Amino acid sequence: MNTKGILIVVSGFSGSGKGTLMKELLSRYPDTYALSISATTRSPRAGEEHGREYFFISKDEFEKMIAKDQLIEYARYVENYYGTPREYVEKKLSEGKDVILEIEIQGALKVKKAFPDTLLLFVTPPNAAELRDRLVGRGTETMDVIKSRLDRACEEAEGMDSYDYLIVNDELEACVQKMHEIIQGEHQRSFRNKDFMKEIKEDLERLKGEE
Amino acid sequence: MNTKGILIVVSGFSGSGKGTLMKELLSRYPDTYALSISATTRSPRAGEEHGREYFFISKDEFEKMIAKDQLIEYARYVENYYGTPREYVEKKLSEGKDVILEIEIQGALKVKKAFPDTLLLFVTPPNAAELRDRLVGRGTETMDVIKSRLDRACEEAEGMDSYDYLIVNDELEACVQKMHEIIQGEHQRSFRNKDFMKEIKEDLERLKGEE
Repeated sequence: MNTKGILIVVSGFSGSGKGTLMKELLSRYPDTYALSISATTRSPRAGEEHGREYFFISKDEFEKMIAKDQLIEYARYVENYYGTPREYVEKKLSEGKDVILEIEIQGALKVKKAFPDTLLLFVTPPNAAELRDRLVGRGTETMDVIKSRLDRACEEAEGMDSYDYLIVNDELEACVQKMHEIIQGEHQRSFRNKDFMKEIKEDLERLKGEE
Repeated sequence: MNTKGILIVVSGFSGSGKGTLMKELLSRYPDTYALSISATTRSPRAGEEHGREYFFISKDEFEKMIAKDQLIEYARYVENYYGTPREYVEKKLSEGKDVILEIEIQGALKVKKAFPDTLLLFVTPPNAAELRDRLVGRGTETMDVIKSRLDRACEEAEGMDSYDYLIVNDELEACVQKMHEIIQGEHQRSFRNKDFMKEIKEDLERLKGEE
């Protein structure tokens, strides 16, 4: 069966807990998954480390990567570039690892277009009421903060249909397990096993010829 | 999330062990799955029971079912009709059970056309050599038997690409588990959760209106 890694994009609502989910998935199955680290031209915030949250590079370096086609996808938000370095992703995939990109919807769709076999997962709270609670917070947020979160959530919700699966983050342990099962089940999709099917067909034809 | 049952068609190579696989899946998860029993006009063989292997009915009764659109799909092989009664399938799906039809490729494609959300699973031995061994047997089969098995296997192999997943029947316990995970994972496909996504979107829009 398919032993090549699957390219996986994980997106989700802010507050859906997808960061924690990814961390748990990777720590539980370190030999199965690899997390792609994005490159960015923005400055590191307090506590962020080069090569852990992001590769922090200069605008000049970033534009060289664009020119050399060394990014799978990239986008510019406000003044800064964000992108997915190609080399790491391709290396890990060829080693048989399932590679996870944690990016926004626009990037997700670009990746899917370039690599149609990409698996798109969207992390969501279990229901609308829960999502609302997480967006509105405990009543200590300003109206501006809530409004900007809502705008973003609406945009994210519009993109949900483009994803292959919804990952419902209700209880962390159960959700990680389910996510793992969904991804591993995907390895058995027919379209990911064209070589296997070809081999079976050729062998049967050969056998028929021997009769 | 999606609580409606999924319609599942299971096909596979002769000798792939799909019968044993189905039996084990149903006995392990009796509340999750329901097995659709086909109707046929052929006579029961020794050991077969009405309502267990098949519903054995007359040609006249079968043709009445066709006329009343009471079959999801049907086909005629040699002198006999085989078909899937609609009532049982729709009842179980609405109860939230995942309903399994164990039918051949032609029937599978008819069901998929009528119900595009049908999940198609194809059971196969782990590799071509194993398939060959199962087809050729222990050297005690006549050439005619082997030839007819091979012809059928070639036909089945041609249809493999139309299925959603390949179920590799290597070790029974592991295979049943995997099959269960694949089906349950399918419940989280976006296209099976349109109501959920709609509710989230509407709730977000309502919240925005309140701002």
